[in-house]
Amino acid sequence: MISKIAEGNNQFRTIGTRPIRHDGVDKVTGRAMYAADIKSPGLLYGKILRSPHAHAIIKAINVEKAKVYPGVKAVITCEDLPFAPDRMTELGEESFLSLKYLSNNVLAFDKVLYRGHAIAAVAAENAHVAEEALHLIEVEYEVLPSVTNVEDAMRADAPILHDHINTGSFPDESLEKSNIASHQQFTRGDVEKGFDESDVVIEGTYRTSSVHQGYIEPQSATGWWSLNGRVSIWTCTQAPFEVRGNVAKVLGLPVSKIKLIPSEIGGGFGGKLACYLEPVAALLSRKSGKPVKLTLTRSEVLEATGPTSGSVVKIKMGAARDGRILAVEANLAFEAGAYPGSPIGGAMACMLTPYDVPNFIIDGYDVVDNKPKTTAYRAPGAPIGGFAVESLIDEMSRILHLDPIKFRLNNAAKEGSRRPDGIVHSRIGCVEILEAVLNHPHYSTPLKTDTQGRGVAIGFWRNNSGPSSVVASVNPDGTVGVVEGSVDIGGSRVAIAQQFAEALGIPVDDTIPTVVDTDGVGYTSMTAGSGVQFKTGWAAYTAAEDIKTQVKERASLIWDVPVRLIEYSEGVVYNKNDKGQTLNFREIAALLNETGGPIIGRGNVNPGGVGASVTANIIDVEIDLETGKISIIRCTAFQDPGRAIHPSYVEGQMQGGTVQGIGWALNEEYFIGSNGEMLNNSFLDYRMPTSLDVPMIDTMIVEVPNPGHPFGVRGVGEASIIPPLAAVANALRDAAGIRMTALPLSPNAVFDALSAAENY
Amino acid sequence: MISKIAEGNNQFRTIGTRPIRHDGVDKVTGRAMYAADIKSPGLLYGKILRSPHAHAIIKAINVEKAKVYPGVKAVITCEDLPFAPDRMTELGEESFLSLKYLSNNVLAFDKVLYRGHAIAAVAAENAHVAEEALHLIEVEYEVLPSVTNVEDAMRADAPILHDHINTGSFPDESLEKSNIASHQQFTRGDVEKGFDESDVVIEGTYRTSSVHQGYIEPQSATGWWSLNGRVSIWTCTQAPFEVRGNVAKVLGLPVSKIKLIPSEIGGGFGGKLACYLEPVAALLSRKSGKPVKLTLTRSEVLEATGPTSGSVVKIKMGAARDGRILAVEANLAFEAGAYPGSPIGGAMACMLTPYDVPNFIIDGYDVVDNKPKTTAYRAPGAPIGGFAVESLIDEMSRILHLDPIKFRLNNAAKEGSRRPDGIVHSRIGCVEILEAVLNHPHYSTPLKTDTQGRGVAIGFWRNNSGPSSVVASVNPDGTVGVVEGSVDIGGSRVAIAQQFAEALGIPVDDTIPTVVDTDGVGYTSMTAGSGVQFKTGWAAYTAAEDIKTQVKERASLIWDVPVRLIEYSEGVVYNKNDKGQTLNFREIAALLNETGGPIIGRGNVNPGGVGASVTANIIDVEIDLETGKISIIRCTAFQDPGRAIHPSYVEGQMQGGTVQGIGWALNEEYFIGSNGEMLNNSFLDYRMPTSLDVPMIDTMIVEVPNPGHPFGVRGVGEASIIPPLAAVANALRDAAGIRMTALPLSPNAVFDALSAAENY
Repeated sequence: MISKIAEGNNQFRTIGTRPIRHDGVDKVTGRAMYAADIKSPGLLYGKILRSPHAHAIIKAINVEKAKVYPGVKAVITCEDLPFAPDRMTELGEESFLSLKYLSNNVLAFDKVLYRGHAIAAVAAENAHVAEEALHLIEVEYEVLPSVTNVEDAMRADAPILHDHINTGSFPDESLEKSNIASHQQFTRGDVEKGFDESDVVIEGTYRTSSVHQGYIEPQSATGWWSLNGRVSIWTCTQAPFEVRGNVAKVLGLPVSKIKLIPSEIGGGFGGKLACYLEPVAALLSRKSGKPVKLTLTRSEVLEATGPTSGSVVKIKMGAARDGRILAVEANLAFEAGAYPGSPIGGAMACMLTPYDVPNFIIDGYDVVDNKPKTTAYRAPGAPIGGFAVESLIDEMSRILHLDPIKFRLNNAAKEGSRRPDGIVHSRIGCVEILEAVLNHPHYSTPLKTDTQGRGVAIGFWRNNSGPSSVVASVNPDGTVGVVEGSVDIGGSRVAIAQQFAEALGIPVDDTIPTVVDTDGVGYTSMTAGSGVQFKTGWAAYTAAEDIKTQVKERASLIWDVPVRLIEYSEGVVYNKNDKGQTLNFREIAALLNETGGPIIGRGNVNPGGVGASVTANIIDVEIDLETGKISIIRCTAFQDPGRAIHPSYVEGQMQGGTVQGIGWALNEEYFIGSNGEMLNNSFLDYRMPTSLDVPMIDTMIVEVPNPGHPFGVRGVGEASIIPPLAAVANALRDAAGIRMTALPLSPNAVFDALSAAENY
Repeated sequence: MISKIAEGNNQFRTIGTRPIRHDGVDKVTGRAMYAADIKSPGLLYGKILRSPHAHAIIKAINVEKAKVYPGVKAVITCEDLPFAPDRMTELGEESFLSLKYLSNNVLAFDKVLYRGHAIAAVAAENAHVAEEALHLIEVEYEVLPSVTNVEDAMRADAPILHDHINTGSFPDESLEKSNIASHQQFTRGDVEKGFDESDVVIEGTYRTSSVHQGYIEPQSATGWWSLNGRVSIWTCTQAPFEVRGNVAKVLGLPVSKIKLIPSEIGGGFGGKLACYLEPVAALLSRKSGKPVKLTLTRSEVLEATGPTSGSVVKIKMGAARDGRILAVEANLAFEAGAYPGSPIGGAMACMLTPYDVPNFIIDGYDVVDNKPKTTAYRAPGAPIGGFAVESLIDEMSRILHLDPIKFRLNNAAKEGSRRPDGIVHSRIGCVEILEAVLNHPHYSTPLKTDTQGRGVAIGFWRNNSGPSSVVASVNPDGTVGVVEGSVDIGGSRVAIAQQFAEALGIPVDDTIPTVVDTDGVGYTSMTAGSGVQFKTGWAAYTAAEDIKTQVKERASLIWDVPVRLIEYSEGVVYNKNDKGQTLNFREIAALLNETGGPIIGRGNVNPGGVGASVTANIIDVEIDLETGKISIIRCTAFQDPGRAIHPSYVEGQMQGGTVQGIGWALNEEYFIGSNGEMLNNSFLDYRMPTSLDVPMIDTMIVEVPNPGHPFGVRGVGEASIIPPLAAVANALRDAAGIRMTALPLSPNAVFDALSAAENY
């Protein structure tokens, strides 16, 4: 089943339509409240002192002068946090290290591990005083050599970040200490045999640079500690409950002592899952007795939050002349930044997953270096793995003289085949996506000039679930307040409301979705993993079913008819034995208070049945041979969301993900200076795509409903970022005959490659 | 069953204990947010133009000069409201009048009906500019004669407030127009026969003055209208959902277009059930496009909100020499203020209700006059009715030479007897309260001087219920977030949490109660009628039961044991067949996310089974014969709350109610000038009792559990205000031999009465 979603021709009333999002007007008129909009009586302003060195031992911190500076109300350092090295025994190694990494990244303990690492914080009556006072904090450093590149960090002579990491087995097993924090492996079949049986074996080494999530809204958090021991924290986060948990861990509190109030969020893309400012704001408030707000500058965002990993991927692939991939060997090393935890696992789990490959071995290494701790970025890891695999597949299809999509179709994963991570594929839309690409007019439209080229690539993303809660209260006018814990970063309020309205048979405009704080709703896992429409949609569906049950009971009471004779369908409750006896939802809503009280529906779930998404790009580029500049002249994005609840926001996610992938492919990178400092720490110099850089991205939604969800949802937010990296590189190969294996494909890099090819 | 509540000796774990309230620390340290604490970006400040006349026709309003004054962003008048006289046909008379009274009181339409009546409002960049601009609004008045006293308002020659009121039947049936808005009557038996059979018949005419609720926090409201058509209103109110409904009515919107966010509340006492500022703030915001805050001054509070009625009550009582009351005839007239709706019904329903009286006729008249529209005040109407009845009973017991408590015991209402309003008394604590008074050491302690006197009185309050909602979400650390819609004016958060914790078998400190906005929880009727612990406690109990059911299901899943074998008791879930298989609440809470998702419990109720409260006072006074000043030297308050969930807050309500009753009795009154203006419109001149004016009020809780509630709750907030009015007057009678029938018993009034008695 392949279909561009056909509106007006679907089985649903509300799902698949495009209502205006409930939060839309407030967001475009400036009324929506973001984290930095918070004001409260007596508010103080905080600033953070950050390391000027990429790697140094902190020998002493003296805050005395800052503390007495007029207008300063509190100064904190790591001494105000409960982390201490002697807690290893008490906590056990795993918990201790988890606390150490989290706490030391919030405020450095014995060492600073990257330029911009937070060391101390000041709260003052205004931001200027706070900034002044930062200069009065004296830190004595012993500067160490630094390493800011994954390959350098793995060398035997690399500066070592953490004395306790000794799992080094790559490249040198003899090392006692290492920057390699972990090693994982997925393998199946007999790789050597696979290569032996292959007609063609090719290989390549692919590199990517650090790139940042680049959300518009810098992090901001306000803490207000009550003398009753509870602290309220207003912050922009994708993960209110997880951040609550992490703040609790860093501060040594039970989670219930923290009330986390999420604001509207100006973009996250994974970068707002982490916990940076929240414990600092809380502690400054505890010390000062006042609410304290901290807001990052853009430079702080780039230097001390995010990014995702720079990487190196060595990959070798063997295939039979008939187009079967027989073996893959891949070796991935990802920067984790200052503390372990790169998205290496995501890359390993997804890079080969759209294909059935009988023999493979995938090794992954998580490597620390002197850069900010990496955090999640849209389909974490998958774009990097995809860049290598999809580039190599493009080369292989050229060698085999096969259409690159047909070559992929030859090897496409199907329901029942086993993923590299061992999970068996449930119903998956890989074939449908590939056929959609093959049949799309874009794929067969001739290019216009010699300097144009076309590239294709596909991507796989596993998507995710988690606990989620929705509580829905019926108003006397027949509208329903839908309370949810999922922060809305991409139109999720309206799409959750559509699933709720669909289940209850009421218009979506009759719902009032509200995202509330951690005291106001049940545990709801993060807005991430493309999981909100899956899990919170399911919770909303469950809450609607709970309301239907109660509405039937109430009708039974009102009509004095046994409840077994009452039916509810399409927003109308009726007596099965007397079809004239009906009440629509608005009518019964008006009767509730007088017939037993209001009706509240609850949905509290942690559903299994997640469905993965496959995605694809056709990208046409034009290369300026004089400058090396690549222009994207046409781009079509394909994705299987399972069910497109709100097609506009599905398309928006596909377009947004694709543009971020294009930015990663073409321009984005961290330029690091000789002392480990980021040289391009502003949006003027960190080159993200603007609307002038990309054409309108055409989208094609291919719905292959997920049988594991009431409405067939898989998820949509992440997968579209995967294919552009290779699709652009493949298009450049098509246009100019050069295979570039390191991102970004910036004009100077392309120009150098073109020059080298000419010389060759 | 009479008992001073015996702590440590009750059947409950949490109910009956005195935990610290969750909101306590924030309230005493200034962190709690009240309505005027709200700030938002771009906030404007509003001010209201008020009538200088008590009664006038508005001939023209010109706001042009105000509109162009620098810094002014919006000006509104009644023209901005959808009320119009020609809507009678469309709406029908009842709805039309309801809208007219509500809307015209928010912003005057054709007439101003009291000094301070709102006419127009300005929003400006600061409050000073807004106030300046008020002076630029030109209003042309035709001043009319005014009437500010209930007896004058009923006279045939009185100025008429509303042309459409023609129900006048008292005192002159011939009148075509009248200020008497309605007449009600309760009657039973044969009153004439009752008087004929009586050995003693006495009568009196009792008068009370207007008194104000006198909350500390003046009203404040902030409106922010979104271009999406929804308006958010932050306000201090006792009734978020009812005010939402009234704002919707005044603005002509569906209720779901309004999000009402209640702040903490600095006292209400019934005075914060009404809707004054909210529509004004909303409209100013709509016109200006910005959030707008209005905060009343104390003078505005006294002149244009509240108060409760001034009154006249004529009453006649007949009794047999053996102490049986045989007949009562009562005629009550209450000021409604500018629009109909005094608490006359509360007085009629409660004044005779502690007694079984075989023959009675009670007539009640609701009378408009040129004062602010009266609103509810703690047990609305009952103190006024009680003052008359309890004073007359005191006289009767003197004439019959009966102990006044024993006389009341002779006539006490019991379960099964019928109330004057026709409702049959369920289990009621009238006898228990009277016996508690009789047996209390205070009652038998001799007075010390001749100028001291002792008075007793009792009171009856019906209490109330209504729809209520609680949603409770279990945290992974075993605490539970308890979301409720009942605004907390007297410690209700903790007491609701106690009922919840009791039902669930967890410590009350493991609950996190939160009062949320109207989008965040199901319909919850007002914090009034002493009903919160009854209805919202019941909703909390229901939510806890819902959690227990789910916990049992979850344990069944975890242990793979049929759910019928699972028991939950005292916070522990266990396998009936294997007593070793147990999980306490914290343990199972930690397992929820991994075993199917979070647990949310819902309680949505509108319970019947309300239990009424009886209350009593023993008050000792000392009279200064030189000045007429009465000092309260000892006071004991008795009340039956059914069950004292949190005894400290029950005692607090009893003390607070008693002190307000003492203020009403001794000093509080509106002094009205010759032009209908309030002469004492500040707390310097409106004489409320301070801590220097009253001794510590001793309290005795007499628990007679209400069989209609899971924990026996009746309610506590209101009843204790009833007895002091008569108890003080009876004590004065005891001390000085004078029967005063008009409140307040201010020094000059007492001095005059003493002088008159001497002369007599």
